[in-house]
Amino acid sequence: MRDRGEFDWSRQFSAQGGRAAPSEIQELMKILDRPGLISLAGGIPDAKLFPIAEIAAAHRRILDDPKRSGLALQYTHSEGFAPLREWLAGDWRRQGIDCGQENILVTSGAQQALDLVARLFLDNGDRLLTAPTLYIGALQAFGNLAPAYGELAELQQPRAPAAKLAYVMPDFANPTGLSMNLDERRALLEGAQARNVVLVEDGTYASLNYDGPPPASLMALSAGRSGAIDGARVIYCGTFSKSLAPGLRVGWIVAPAAVIRRLVLLKQASDLYTSLLAQMVLFEVVCNLGDTHGETLRRIYGMRRDAMLSALSKYMPGGVDWTKPGGGMFVWLTLPPECHATELCSRALEEENLAFIPGSAFYARSPSRNTVRLSFCLNDPETNAQGVERLARLVAR
Amino acid sequence: MRDRGEFDWSRQFSAQGGRAAPSEIQELMKILDRPGLISLAGGIPDAKLFPIAEIAAAHRRILDDPKRSGLALQYTHSEGFAPLREWLAGDWRRQGIDCGQENILVTSGAQQALDLVARLFLDNGDRLLTAPTLYIGALQAFGNLAPAYGELAELQQPRAPAAKLAYVMPDFANPTGLSMNLDERRALLEGAQARNVVLVEDGTYASLNYDGPPPASLMALSAGRSGAIDGARVIYCGTFSKSLAPGLRVGWIVAPAAVIRRLVLLKQASDLYTSLLAQMVLFEVVCNLGDTHGETLRRIYGMRRDAMLSALSKYMPGGVDWTKPGGGMFVWLTLPPECHATELCSRALEEENLAFIPGSAFYARSPSRNTVRLSFCLNDPETNAQGVERLARLVAR
Repeated sequence: MRDRGEFDWSRQFSAQGGRAAPSEIQELMKILDRPGLISLAGGIPDAKLFPIAEIAAAHRRILDDPKRSGLALQYTHSEGFAPLREWLAGDWRRQGIDCGQENILVTSGAQQALDLVARLFLDNGDRLLTAPTLYIGALQAFGNLAPAYGELAELQQPRAPAAKLAYVMPDFANPTGLSMNLDERRALLEGAQARNVVLVEDGTYASLNYDGPPPASLMALSAGRSGAIDGARVIYCGTFSKSLAPGLRVGWIVAPAAVIRRLVLLKQASDLYTSLLAQMVLFEVVCNLGDTHGETLRRIYGMRRDAMLSALSKYMPGGVDWTKPGGGMFVWLTLPPECHATELCSRALEEENLAFIPGSAFYARSPSRNTVRLSFCLNDPETNAQGVERLARLVAR
Repeated sequence: MRDRGEFDWSRQFSAQGGRAAPSEIQELMKILDRPGLISLAGGIPDAKLFPIAEIAAAHRRILDDPKRSGLALQYTHSEGFAPLREWLAGDWRRQGIDCGQENILVTSGAQQALDLVARLFLDNGDRLLTAPTLYIGALQAFGNLAPAYGELAELQQPRAPAAKLAYVMPDFANPTGLSMNLDERRALLEGAQARNVVLVEDGTYASLNYDGPPPASLMALSAGRSGAIDGARVIYCGTFSKSLAPGLRVGWIVAPAAVIRRLVLLKQASDLYTSLLAQMVLFEVVCNLGDTHGETLRRIYGMRRDAMLSALSKYMPGGVDWTKPGGGMFVWLTLPPECHATELCSRALEEENLAFIPGSAFYARSPSRNTVRLSFCLNDPETNAQGVERLARLVAR
């Protein structure tokens, strides 16, 4: 009966349970309330722009309605709230693509979408093709299955090793802000078809476009060939976290019905279902807001991007390069080769009260140490400019 | 460029992605609105007993407060809302067991708790000890890792094959309604220690006790030896789904800090975090309600249990046995050996407009075909009695 804490838990953990690496963003988020800190770190939308009044009103309407309140707080099935799925399917039908509720699974954020897709397709060691850098949460979700990472260019190489999945963020990618043009999208699809690879399209930032809408999605191009989602070989992951608010934790997957049916089973085993109250609220909010909210976000975030890009031109010393994103939340900097971004990040916190994410956190393989991700959405234009000025001072020092 | 739906998705799925079986409960839930149907099927609490006014008021207070609304809808870290974790930790400290926030992870329902624990500990094929029957959702969560199932009795057998994990619901178990007494709990712990097995304790139904509180939890017994959660070899999974409302999707894990730190990483990769709004609402509701709501549930559900047990005595023909649960939601019936419960279930829907779950859905191995699970919480006492009368007619036919 003696068991006084000397139990060695680490020897009990599974192979996959020991693999995930902690996210640096999560650590950085814990110090964001430091006085005077300028954070260009997390991919965090500005809470001041959340449609809080609409969200509060929808909660009130649903929870004060005796016909709906009990339903909203009760168990439900795993597929998601039918009117919300129907609304999401309508988006594709308006593009001339046959899409029904059976093509939609509501998830607990896009993070769960990636986790479910990873578990549905990847066995340990399967080859996964990605851009050199990608969203840290995708690295975590896929990382649980310990894939062998390869580059997207392998889709065009007939003699490259067989791959199972390719993960792509074609619009304003996290962390680089870069987008694929229409020709690149078509080439990617052709390669995926020739090499029998499933494409996972992460559409997280597609709606945050500041210079006009992006080219057709991979899903639209793939489904367009047969005229139906069921004919596509793409799995599309979307979220309301950037366009409305992350706190409702609602994302979705669009995929052929044969894939959705399997994902529903994994979803059931993962968390049974996504809060019906949150789904009902979201459905009312998207119906009531129309596109006015999206226009507001594009206008305001667009100005914040402009401010950051201007400040980079104004303050950065020679030898620093950066991307010029048409949307999303991020600018990606390449510092002079002798710069070590992780050290710079520590110095930035200490000497300049400035937070950002060193680029090395985003690499699937062989990280570059002289890259940096800056997020421009959280702060007003002046603060973005000040943040860039602080960073420029550090780099020049 | 031709790809017209002939793509064979099933050949792309991973080993684990193809394994989960559909839950019959999920299917049955889709027909629950049939007129006149009496459902003794799902483990569903009665929505009429949800503290809806409190939940609505808490939403209003938080979403109408400019200091809190943005926070509630923003990203947050994965561990959970600190005041809620502190409140949960306080529960253990009042039992004289050292417990802090670092011992608590908030999850998206107890289902996610089981999924994360399964992924942290089980490699494909690891041995998992359970009662002969268990919660379908646990079978789904563990099933993704394709464990080799063994019986809990193996904990007392020094020469049984090595096992990694034992999953136990000591209080009013789903599906049997049976509980373990204090001696059985102590023997289980001793066996787990002797055989180096981690215990996963599912406390879902502990608060729904109708004849007085259950004996000390496995966690309390294990942590009691060293006086601290960090000295336990138990992982405790709890939920607000039965005691308040499932729709908020909030559960939790209590475990040594070394385990929580790993689970946090898996949680991050799974869905980043559980809705902070839901956690803030729950914290206000539990603080405001005190134990009055629990007392109401115990009184009303207790009467519904009594009604079902009386009706079983009154109507059931000879050769039928059933459990007499002291809490929870379920009575477990053993029909005469010639009865085939799955066929009976189809006939019940057709001939008697009655729904229940055939017992075979709950077995980890070698299902008995003559068992049935009845849920007594959803209906008033008269309906429970009518449902049992309908079932008795069918069995006698």
